[in-house]
Amino acid sequence: MNNELPKNIRLNENGTAVVILDQTLLPNETVYLELGEAFELHEAIVSLRVRGAPAIGIFASYALYVLACEITTNSFEEFRAKVGELSTFLDSARPTAVNLSKQLRRMEKLVDSMTGSSIQQVLIAMRSEAESIQHEDIEMCRAISEYGLTLIKDGYGVMTHCNAGPLATSLFGTALGPMLLAHERGIAFRAFCCETRPLLQGARLTSYELFNAGVDTTLICDNMASIVMKEGKINAVFVGCDRVAMNGDAANKIGTSGLAVLAKHYDIPFYVCCPSSTIDPECPTGAEIEIELREPREIKQLYFSKPIAPDGVKCYNPSFDVTDNSLITAIITERGICEAPYTDSLSCFAARI
Amino acid sequence: MNNELPKNIRLNENGTAVVILDQTLLPNETVYLELGEAFELHEAIVSLRVRGAPAIGIFASYALYVLACEITTNSFEEFRAKVGELSTFLDSARPTAVNLSKQLRRMEKLVDSMTGSSIQQVLIAMRSEAESIQHEDIEMCRAISEYGLTLIKDGYGVMTHCNAGPLATSLFGTALGPMLLAHERGIAFRAFCCETRPLLQGARLTSYELFNAGVDTTLICDNMASIVMKEGKINAVFVGCDRVAMNGDAANKIGTSGLAVLAKHYDIPFYVCCPSSTIDPECPTGAEIEIELREPREIKQLYFSKPIAPDGVKCYNPSFDVTDNSLITAIITERGICEAPYTDSLSCFAARI
Repeated sequence: MNNELPKNIRLNENGTAVVILDQTLLPNETVYLELGEAFELHEAIVSLRVRGAPAIGIFASYALYVLACEITTNSFEEFRAKVGELSTFLDSARPTAVNLSKQLRRMEKLVDSMTGSSIQQVLIAMRSEAESIQHEDIEMCRAISEYGLTLIKDGYGVMTHCNAGPLATSLFGTALGPMLLAHERGIAFRAFCCETRPLLQGARLTSYELFNAGVDTTLICDNMASIVMKEGKINAVFVGCDRVAMNGDAANKIGTSGLAVLAKHYDIPFYVCCPSSTIDPECPTGAEIEIELREPREIKQLYFSKPIAPDGVKCYNPSFDVTDNSLITAIITERGICEAPYTDSLSCFAARI
Repeated sequence: MNNELPKNIRLNENGTAVVILDQTLLPNETVYLELGEAFELHEAIVSLRVRGAPAIGIFASYALYVLACEITTNSFEEFRAKVGELSTFLDSARPTAVNLSKQLRRMEKLVDSMTGSSIQQVLIAMRSEAESIQHEDIEMCRAISEYGLTLIKDGYGVMTHCNAGPLATSLFGTALGPMLLAHERGIAFRAFCCETRPLLQGARLTSYELFNAGVDTTLICDNMASIVMKEGKINAVFVGCDRVAMNGDAANKIGTSGLAVLAKHYDIPFYVCCPSSTIDPECPTGAEIEIELREPREIKQLYFSKPIAPDGVKCYNPSFDVTDNSLITAIITERGICEAPYTDSLSCFAARI
């Protein structure tokens, strides 16, 4: 597994800005942004230039440090109050992933623990804490990858949704970690990426990451998951996660729950991969998780004029699927409403030429 | 229900071409095409300028008549052979919907029944047969709408997939027929359209047809069906159909089987609407239905630069959903693999700050 230092989220050389790979431009353009202003750091989260629950947490920690450096005061109380305001502002960018608020609270608690220290000392400690958050994430993803690896066998088809790869974390990834590790260890499996409408992270980011790593990768539209499972192509589903309630209910990218219902129906194991920081002790069940509602234009206006996946990625594009009769309540024809058993009810209705 | 004559498929004034509304340009442009050449009639089916199982059947009947008019021979046998060739060519455009081959066979059988007649007489009969096919479709859709109407109640949320409306037939529609009729009869219900990737017929055609008819219409991405059902917004699902096997297995637009699994899981009735001509007596089960595989570029290259739905259509755009713990096989964290009961297994893993 690639051990080079993560490039997708880091401080710039003099620590005055956070550098990120702009994920909205992938897979067609590799553009790094240097963000130092509060509004642009906030906007980067809102606009998904940086996304993925762990990545947002890491990014926000660095962002809070960068913004704290700009606070001009010698009073600890004033400094603490301004850090609190900045943290609240960053936290308002997205509501669902627990990591954002959790890592910001961790940074604030650090500041609280240093009452009486000089602002300079606090800033040094904040930078170090943000780096720790990132390093812990790398180690967590490495461990998740090793655990998940035990569940991928030779010949498997593995489905994933949205992006829970290196781009969504700082290295390795959560749901993609086991897959990337399996590939590295020579396990022959096939990956199926659901494109993940509306913003197509599965196509733009996951198929890009897996394909570039050399994994046998097939891209499908979200509504093709059922047929692919029915055809026996899938042996396990791995997804990431934005928040886990204490009863195990797991919030993740829209569409995840539908995949889980399908996996259950087709008797395929469904695995949620996440750092334990994603488990929210304050959240008893999924009903307490706030679901972010985003703008209609993400659905209605497709602004991806360039290809949405690497050129070489395979696609599976069946135009139809077959719905099993056991799932159909009734078939309504111009001759009346047919119910099961259909072999009887349809035979009087079938139009013979 | 609107009783004006259908405009989406018809012969031109002198009967030398089939006129269709180009469905690939909706909802932004209303362009009628006049098609008289074999290759362009074939292409219109392949490229989905005309689509929807019943509509394709009607279109192909008119197309065969138009092409038959161009056959230059006085020999019935020669004429019959050329009609057979043209029919085979048109039939090759798409494999899944039974209506295409069924209506072409009906036209051929008509020709067979007229052995000995003049070519002129046969052509008059062919035109009349194609018109009958269209009129029968209108009556079938009207009857389906009345039957389906009995299943829609005040306050219902009704989900549909792809497009089975007037555009997919010649008038009224199959799955949309009951909905349009319910609206006309003053039943207050809400429609939810799945956008239907890759070619977005649900967004471009269904939300357009329902919205224009004045129905309370909300557009969602395909992967949002699960959350919308879970939230109790849906009381019935209505879909069209391209072929029904004799055991009731039903082929329809990709994604339909997934919706059916979800509907079953959330205990929502799932209705397939189709003319009885869609029931295929020669097809015992869904396993015998050929599923059309289409080109990867439909998935990878989004060529909808203009809006994909009418401006006024509502969208519901949740960014996440919650997967019920009962659907999760295991949660993989850096501390190990948690299994149910999660309330126990997660509590030792939850990272508390």
